[in-house]
Amino acid sequence: MRLRNWLFRIFREVSLLFGFEEVDFPVLESEALFIRKAGEEIRDQLYCFEDRGNRRVALRPELTPSLARLVIQKGKSLSLPLKWFAIGQCWRYERMTRGRRREHYQWNMDIIGVPDVMAEAELISSIVTFFKRIGITASDVGFKISSRKVLQEVLRCYSIPENLFAKVCIIIDKIEKIPMDEIKKELKSAGVSEKAVEELLQVLSIKSLTKLEEILGSAGEAVADLKLLFSLAEKFGYSEWIEFDASVVRGLAYYTGIVFEGFDREGKLRAICGGGRYDRLLSTFGGDDLPACGFGFGDAVIIELLKDKGLLPEVNLEVENIVSALDVDLQGAAARVASILREKGQSVDLVLESKPLKWVFKRAARINAQRLILVGSSEWQRDMVSVKILSSGEQYEVKLDELE
Amino acid sequence: MRLRNWLFRIFREVSLLFGFEEVDFPVLESEALFIRKAGEEIRDQLYCFEDRGNRRVALRPELTPSLARLVIQKGKSLSLPLKWFAIGQCWRYERMTRGRRREHYQWNMDIIGVPDVMAEAELISSIVTFFKRIGITASDVGFKISSRKVLQEVLRCYSIPENLFAKVCIIIDKIEKIPMDEIKKELKSAGVSEKAVEELLQVLSIKSLTKLEEILGSAGEAVADLKLLFSLAEKFGYSEWIEFDASVVRGLAYYTGIVFEGFDREGKLRAICGGGRYDRLLSTFGGDDLPACGFGFGDAVIIELLKDKGLLPEVNLEVENIVSALDVDLQGAAARVASILREKGQSVDLVLESKPLKWVFKRAARINAQRLILVGSSEWQRDMVSVKILSSGEQYEVKLDELE
Repeated sequence: MRLRNWLFRIFREVSLLFGFEEVDFPVLESEALFIRKAGEEIRDQLYCFEDRGNRRVALRPELTPSLARLVIQKGKSLSLPLKWFAIGQCWRYERMTRGRRREHYQWNMDIIGVPDVMAEAELISSIVTFFKRIGITASDVGFKISSRKVLQEVLRCYSIPENLFAKVCIIIDKIEKIPMDEIKKELKSAGVSEKAVEELLQVLSIKSLTKLEEILGSAGEAVADLKLLFSLAEKFGYSEWIEFDASVVRGLAYYTGIVFEGFDREGKLRAICGGGRYDRLLSTFGGDDLPACGFGFGDAVIIELLKDKGLLPEVNLEVENIVSALDVDLQGAAARVASILREKGQSVDLVLESKPLKWVFKRAARINAQRLILVGSSEWQRDMVSVKILSSGEQYEVKLDELE
Repeated sequence: MRLRNWLFRIFREVSLLFGFEEVDFPVLESEALFIRKAGEEIRDQLYCFEDRGNRRVALRPELTPSLARLVIQKGKSLSLPLKWFAIGQCWRYERMTRGRRREHYQWNMDIIGVPDVMAEAELISSIVTFFKRIGITASDVGFKISSRKVLQEVLRCYSIPENLFAKVCIIIDKIEKIPMDEIKKELKSAGVSEKAVEELLQVLSIKSLTKLEEILGSAGEAVADLKLLFSLAEKFGYSEWIEFDASVVRGLAYYTGIVFEGFDREGKLRAICGGGRYDRLLSTFGGDDLPACGFGFGDAVIIELLKDKGLLPEVNLEVENIVSALDVDLQGAAARVASILREKGQSVDLVLESKPLKWVFKRAARINAQRLILVGSSEWQRDMVSVKILSSGEQYEVKLDELE
């Protein structure tokens, strides 16, 4: 929990540094909110059931659909652009592996209302800032960046219908997880011709923006967006963190433009985070579309990475004072001492039972107390208590009304 | 969300002031953890279902059973006493009324391993500290305090079996919610004789500790515990907040000793918080019992109370700087300025699109920005930006490397 609080504190600090506002959504949502037809992993892993009012509900597997619902609901009352962040618990019923749990938290940052690539550049900048704050460098992690428009432009060449697009993306996202033959079979049965499959796979292997421009030409949006993003990255100062990789498509159906994922350069772990532009999500819920982009950053893989790198912080218990009566009759007096200190803003672990001094010292060490305050009868009669500074061993008596 | 963060921050500050450690538990638990046979409201309001692995699971309606499970699981590795707090989301499928929602948060503080009434006294002290911090006084709220041992001693007089005890408590907890005839009927059908019912109801109407002592005698634990608590309250300094009221039993089956609830003195709202001692909960889950007590404090009723008293705090958005390019070609430059400021710890709302100055000023006002930083081409050529202090209207130019 101390580690989690540390991590979430930095999620929060970075989000606020970027001027984002914190939001949250219900954990329990209508199941329909999460059901899309593109065959995403996420859909088969829903924790869903019927509630006592016969509604189909689900524990949220991600936060973005709830955000979309809220934006539609609030409608014109919102001043755009929205810059929202959330740190929310999500559930997926799946096989548990390293960095993959059924219950986990996700840090999300989303920008609603900005069509420009500046928005994606800003989001990646915030993640880089986060990495720096926890001691992760550009030689530890990087971002693979592409755009769904790359695929779209290839598919358009082969007159593959738009409505197959999300499905094709989901299949392609599995490239590193299942054998290539399987990928080809799935693409063909989705209705992509053999020739298109071959060209698609070739384009996906491109790792250079220049090469991509040679193949797609420079007229399309895919290349223009990506070139702009790489030039903005230079201004933001994180060029060394990012690389173009056409194979990145991300596994969620709703992305429409730039997509990115954070990965560890040693290649030992799953993606650390991922995001992209989703300009057409709102209309799938019956709202008017708004340009939007965002990312999700889980709390599990990053902890594995920090462990591997020896970067986990020390997070100790820290209570300023421990207060103990030396005599059971003085417990009320000890309570008074604790109250006085707390009123002055000092944290106090009050010993609630009659315990031997040895026990009190052990407890003091466990909670990293700075001071031990003992309430003994001879001092108490003079309205005094005994104070021991635990780091130095220094000991003295203090008048009750001078205690602070 | 800003209000929630404010409230939770104070929950957290007070808990840490008392030397408590933060914990959390799974939202989704085995259903069995929450099923007790005493007929509590909570049981009929469970959000429960079967997961994909055919396990009966439930969204937690409260935190204490999970805490008990964890304590049993950790066993001897824990150093007692534990002083734990949690701020956790809980679910109950129930009719929604003022201060009562299906999804809500509960602040819990628990002390495990202390049999002495000092523990209960410490818990109430922490709640009083919380009230003071948010501006609530002893003339706004109070605590009704009793002990389950009062009932137990009355029931023992009538040789009513121990195993009926929890059930009787649950019935009695409904006294202010359903008609008295109904209460009597339920008690009788639970197996309490007519004579015992009458005496029970009479004892429950007692509001004075002296009167209680007259009836129960001073030999029993009930009177001794309560007298000790009231004397400790004086030392802690919150006597004016508490009163004895035999009718308080609380609606959870597992309480065994002191019980208390916070109420608004105007009597407009449901209980604000409630807690007590539950020394025998662990054994109901197959563990060895440990003395324990704790409280739950919801996030809904307190907000209603603060509203009524006009004590809701102002919680505004606050971003230190807003940075905008005056020209679309300078957006990269604006990104660089934002990055420099953020590296110095300054929060920045970066304008991500080309917007008219009027729009930028409106946005600056909305987020309560202190400074507006404009990146224009003539200044930029000289490596400078224009800074406007928004409170005073003062405006000046600053070298980029002198910006902080």
